[in-house]
Formats: sequence, structure tokens, C-alpha cells
Amino acid sequence: MSLSSQFELIYYAGVPGRGEHIRLLLEESGDPYTDTAAYSMEECREIVAKSLEGGDGNPPYYAPPLLRHEGLLISQTSNILMYIGQKVGLAGSKDGDAWRVNALALTALDGLSNEVHDCHHPIAVELYYEDQKEESARRSREWIKNRLPKHLAYWQKVLRSRAGPWLLGNEFTYADIVLFQCLDGTQFAFPKAMGQARESGEYDLVFQLWEGVKARPNIASYLASERRQKYDWGIYRYYPDNDVLSDKNSV
Amino acid sequence: MSLSSQFELIYYAGVPGRGEHIRLLLEESGDPYTDTAAYSMEECREIVAKSLEGGDGNPPYYAPPLLRHEGLLISQTSNILMYIGQKVGLAGSKDGDAWRVNALALTALDGLSNEVHDCHHPIAVELYYEDQKEESARRSREWIKNRLPKHLAYWQKVLRSRAGPWLLGNEFTYADIVLFQCLDGTQFAFPKAMGQARESGEYDLVFQLWEGVKARPNIASYLASERRQKYDWGIYRYYPDNDVLSDKNSV
Repeated sequence: MSLSSQFELIYYAGVPGRGEHIRLLLEESGDPYTDTAAYSMEECREIVAKSLEGGDGNPPYYAPPLLRHEGLLISQTSNILMYIGQKVGLAGSKDGDAWRVNALALTALDGLSNEVHDCHHPIAVELYYEDQKEESARRSREWIKNRLPKHLAYWQKVLRSRAGPWLLGNEFTYADIVLFQCLDGTQFAFPKAMGQARESGEYDLVFQLWEGVKARPNIASYLASERRQKYDWGIYRYYPDNDVLSDKNSV
Repeated sequence: MSLSSQFELIYYAGVPGRGEHIRLLLEESGDPYTDTAAYSMEECREIVAKSLEGGDGNPPYYAPPLLRHEGLLISQTSNILMYIGQKVGLAGSKDGDAWRVNALALTALDGLSNEVHDCHHPIAVELYYEDQKEESARRSREWIKNRLPKHLAYWQKVLRSRAGPWLLGNEFTYADIVLFQCLDGTQFAFPKAMGQARESGEYDLVFQLWEGVKARPNIASYLASERRQKYDWGIYRYYPDNDVLSDKNSV
């Protein structure tokens, strides 16, 4: 059993995926951590499979990312973020902020990560994209028309309600990091649709947050490094057929 | 601003939905709570809309369920469950258990609530089921073939790894309640497929947990009461076309 006081991120290599939110948080905090992305894809898969078995008081888990820290082994992105966020002081400082920040992070992950993933896999994750291409195009069209503006308008509203550039106002938290990564990935998946949203000016505070997180010294230095995982076959995928402009009047 | 020390659940009336997990936890704990389900659907919608605006230090939120408690207002089912679970002593008692329980609850909600919902709405939540009926049937068939056995096998594995009837072994936690409600709803949505799974005997510990939670005095008394919300148009819906037997050999 590892009792290391270093954070150990256990996730697949070769894709940002859900692990990227955790990586970004650890990079921002400046705390030392280990990351299985340093291994080959095959070694990584073995470590992940073994870690999912749990043990030493921890239950088996369903899927990575996993975090090991001082003997505790946990799964689920939002759970890991909340755990690390509190330990490194990036979960807000007022009474109850940890719960507000978790709510915001979960909302970003639901709306701009899970929903975007399901745009390319609406029928089954077990099937190839090519086997659900038509459904994927239909879902993407609907998503860009209805959901994307609803999500962006929500984040604009949160930011407009605060007296500062971040989701809690002047205090930076890991919810800002999560929203950044969600916006970043959604721009990779839907460059035309997100470009249109950005140019509309309706979501200026949202895109300012994206720019603001990207410019933070630790984040900027990570993004410029080789450690930053490239988008490819994970949650955020670019399929030109899916990236349409939103025409709110169309049916 | 309400500073009540009573838990206040804010959710739509007329459907169990995501709020039901929270209701079941509050019923199990025996703590007094208020529930907007006591109001008419229309009044409820107004209270929900107003509460989503946040205020008094709380950000706007995207969707219910919401919980208000001592001035704190939060959203997101798993977040609310974790908050209440810790307050009422149903989140485990060993070091780190709160994080293990949150991981388990999130996994149940992902796999046996969100995924089941998406079986009847694979294309868009904004469209009627009738407008995505074919895709819904295709997704359900795939889900019953691949995902359902994977989820049930996972929970069987967790329970087999413990020395007691609950997900943490002998200690009952709110993760057991969440899994119960997920199994209950999935049985409503897919009676044939779940009946087949149950009769196979492969997941006996999982169905024993479902029976075990149902028989707990506070839960049993709630389930028999008028407060228990009936399944209908929410997350768990019964569409006969979607409820097929699993034929693992078919394509």
C-alpha cells in the first residue's frame, strides 16, 4: 500500500480526457504529483486495471481517473477534484464554498464534457463513431442549437452575478479550471459553432475566463509543455460533419 | 434568507427524478425536512425558478434539485447527498470514507440513472421521445446488451469484496440508498431486461441490497406513504419498445 503524501493520478495515457481537469488543478497548485501518463499506453492500461481492483480498505472502482493519496484510493473526476481542491486551498475560503464549488464543477462537467462526448457517441460507447454517424450528426445539430447557448448563457449569468473574473468573484477556485478545460475542449470539438458563439459577444465573460485561466503562470507553462495531453480520440473529438453553425430558426 | 437548520429540498413535484435520492436519504436519517413536492406543480416550478437565481452569497445554479440549509444553497444531486450524508452520519465512519462513498454514489448515478435516462432521449432532451423513438430503441438494445451487465457485474463485484450486505461492508451509507433507487428505477424502465438479469442469479448480492434497503423501517414506511413520488415522465420511463431481453450473441 502506497502511503505517499504525493498525489498520484492514475489515468490512461495519450488523451486529455477526464484526467486533464485533475492535471490542470495539480499544475496550478504547484504541488508535486505523479501521473501514469508518463508510462506507455500499454503499461498505463495495466496500472489502471490493477488500481481499479481497490484493496486496503478501498472498494473496487468502475473507471478511471483514480487518485491515490496517503492510502486512500478514490475515483470519479468531480470527487477527486473536490478532494485535491480542498487540500491545496483552491476550493474557496468562505463557509460552504467547497459545496458551491463542487456544484459548479459538476455542472460544467455535465454540460460541457459529458454532453459533448455523447454528441459523437449518442447510441453506445461500445460502437465506433462510424456506426452511429447519422445519429451523431443529428444530436450535434440539436446540441449546438439548444444546449450550447443554454450552457454558455448560464456561465455568463454566473459571472455577471459576481464582482470579479472568476466563478466565485475575486477568488480563483478549481471550478474555474474545470470550466476552462470544458470550454477549451468544446472549442476543439466544435470550432465553427464555438467561434460563432464567441463572435456573438453574448458570452464575453465566459471567454474572458477561458483566456484568464490560460494566462495563469502555472497553467500557461503546463500548456506549453510536453505534459499537456493532445486532443484526439477522447471526450473531445473533431468531426467536421458535427460542427455546424447554429441556426436557431431551423427545425 | 432562510437560516433554517431544517434541510429544505427544492425540486419539481410529480416525479421522483433526481430529487428522490435526496428524499430517501432524508427519510432514512429521520431528520425533519421540507420538500417542495408538497406544493402544486406550478407553484413548485416558480419556487425552483426563483431558487435557481442564487443570491445571499450563493451563485445562480443550472438545474434542480437544490438544497437550502443554514443559508447555504447548493445544487447537483451527488453534492447534496454528500453534504447531507456527512451531516446525518450516513457517509461512512472510517478515514476517507466520505470520498469512497461519494465515488460509489457518483458511479451509480452515472451508470444507472443518467445512462438510463439517455436511453429514451439519446438525441436531445428538448425533443419528445416520439421524435427520437428509433434511436431510442437502438440505444436501449445496445445498453441492455453491453452496459447493463457491465454495471450489474461491477456492483456484484463491490459487494463480493466486502464482508457485509452494504457497499462499505457492514456499515450502511447513502451510497446504498442511491444504488437502491437506481435499481428500482431501472426495474421500472426495463422490467423484462432487469427480470432476466435477476433470474440469471449472477447479480444476487445486488438484488439482495435492493431488497435490504427497501426493508429498512424508515425507507419501507416512506415507500408505503403518499410522499413517495410515482414513476412516470422523469428519468425512468417505461416504453415497451425499449424493454428487450438481452441476447449477447446478436449484433
